[in-house]
Amino acid sequence: MTPIGRKRWAIPEGYIPAKSHGPEPEMTSHECVCILNASDKTANVTVTIYYSDRAPVAYRLTVPAERTKHVRFNNLTDPEKIPLATEFSSVIESDVPVVCQHTRLDSRQADNALLSTVAFPGDE
Amino acid sequence: MTPIGRKRWAIPEGYIPAKSHGPEPEMTSHECVCILNASDKTANVTVTIYYSDRAPVAYRLTVPAERTKHVRFNNLTDPEKIPLATEFSSVIESDVPVVCQHTRLDSRQADNALLSTVAFPGDE
Amino acid sequence: MTPIGRKRWAIPEGYIPAKSHGPEPEMTSHECVCILNASDKTANVTVTIYYSDRAPVAYRLTVPAERTKHVRFNNLTDPEKIPLATEFSSVIESDVPVVCQHTRLDSRQADNALLSTVAFPGDE
Amino acid sequence: MTPIGRKRWAIPEGYIPAKSHGPEPEMTSHECVCILNASDKTANVTVTIYYSDRAPVAYRLTVPAERTKHVRFNNLTDPEKIPLATEFSSVIESDVPVVCQHTRLDSRQADNALLSTVAFPGDE
Repeated sequence: MTPIGRKRWAIPEGYIPAKSHGPEPEMTSHECVCILNASDKTANVTVTIYYSDRAPVAYRLTVPAERTKHVRFNNLTDPEKIPLATEFSSVIESDVPVVCQHTRLDSRQADNALLSTVAFPGDE
Repeated sequence: MTPIGRKRWAIPEGYIPAKSHGPEPEMTSHECVCILNASDKTANVTVTIYYSDRAPVAYRLTVPAERTKHVRFNNLTDPEKIPLATEFSSVIESDVPVVCQHTRLDSRQADNALLSTVAFPGDE
Repeated sequence: MTPIGRKRWAIPEGYIPAKSHGPEPEMTSHECVCILNASDKTANVTVTIYYSDRAPVAYRLTVPAERTKHVRFNNLTDPEKIPLATEFSSVIESDVPVVCQHTRLDSRQADNALLSTVAFPGDE
Repeated sequence: MTPIGRKRWAIPEGYIPAKSHGPEPEMTSHECVCILNASDKTANVTVTIYYSDRAPVAYRLTVPAERTKHVRFNNLTDPEKIPLATEFSSVIESDVPVVCQHTRLDSRQADNALLSTVAFPGDE
């Protein structure tokens, strides 16, 4: 059976709140993409960040076979950190099928808020 | 490689809360569509607002090539503002493929709530 | 151009919280399906509620052409009310293409929480 | 008419918060998959949990014909409990078409937060 997923995904919403309440790192405001690699091969992944006013920036990572990786955008540092309180979008490309979901924990106010959605899958 | 996305999207849920808590504009209650244009051409976009009891109203905007635009429905003013605390839906049409996601920040009560979903993609 | 949407949709999650904080009806805990009819014909819609332990129950409604309807499951009464604090799912069927989105406002605790997702579209 | 749904689904995001506020079990922090079986046959379902650092683990359950089941990941115990505060993903496979939606109630802080999304459907 072919592994579930697609090789290209998009997440139009992106924003890392600049403030947090509660113990770090669990309750730190964060923006996350969860990547499931249910295939039997390592996934070589490129995450490209699109901004409103400057050129896109690409990051590389891997997800082992039959594993999940929850990637906090806050933690991407090479080639540069994503600025806080800044609007962005992301495109995720992989050499094997993966499944992507977007989640934000926003703890700017005393009690945290959450949002989540499966990302938009490309055709392949 | 063809750019990721579709040329038509729909967001059935729409409602701008009439009250807010916290500093403006960051914590102002708002309804948002994030539009990613990962193509190499400017996207000419029409956002059509559907109401429960009157005819649809259309707004026009552009998203530059390889850029994102986070559009607050609160900020659409031409030809008219969208009334607060009113139920609506939206359809987004573009001349190049884009990807759309719907988000609301609701700060009517002391601590904000969030919702988000990738919009419904049309067939093309 | 054909109207955007599908004729069949499903929402697996359904639960109307039994408690609320804040002014009615705005802040009353509720479960909602928003139905966009972007076509030029009235949509005749059947909403079927599936339970964990008894037979499904069907409700009928209409959405005018080029209009949206935000349907609170709390307000469905014919043939019977949906019990509070009870798990259910729903299937929405229409004779013209529509687009459906699921939203819950949960105000059981002092500050409200929100969730939303575009419903699952059938093939047609 | 064929029943709505697919035989394979994926939920990349998974995390059961380790703390809760409010009365149990209603307000206990939980992670849930709601499975709608709108077909006229019992669904035999396998839920496979993927971790970041160890092999996947499979659980089996059934959903009767024309019924819904809201499955709290917290309550899966055979062959083992899913550890709290641990990142995971899930794949749901069924022998008849079903529809799956992912929901989390997070009550770590005083007021609960919610997230939800329809799961990612496989091709069949």
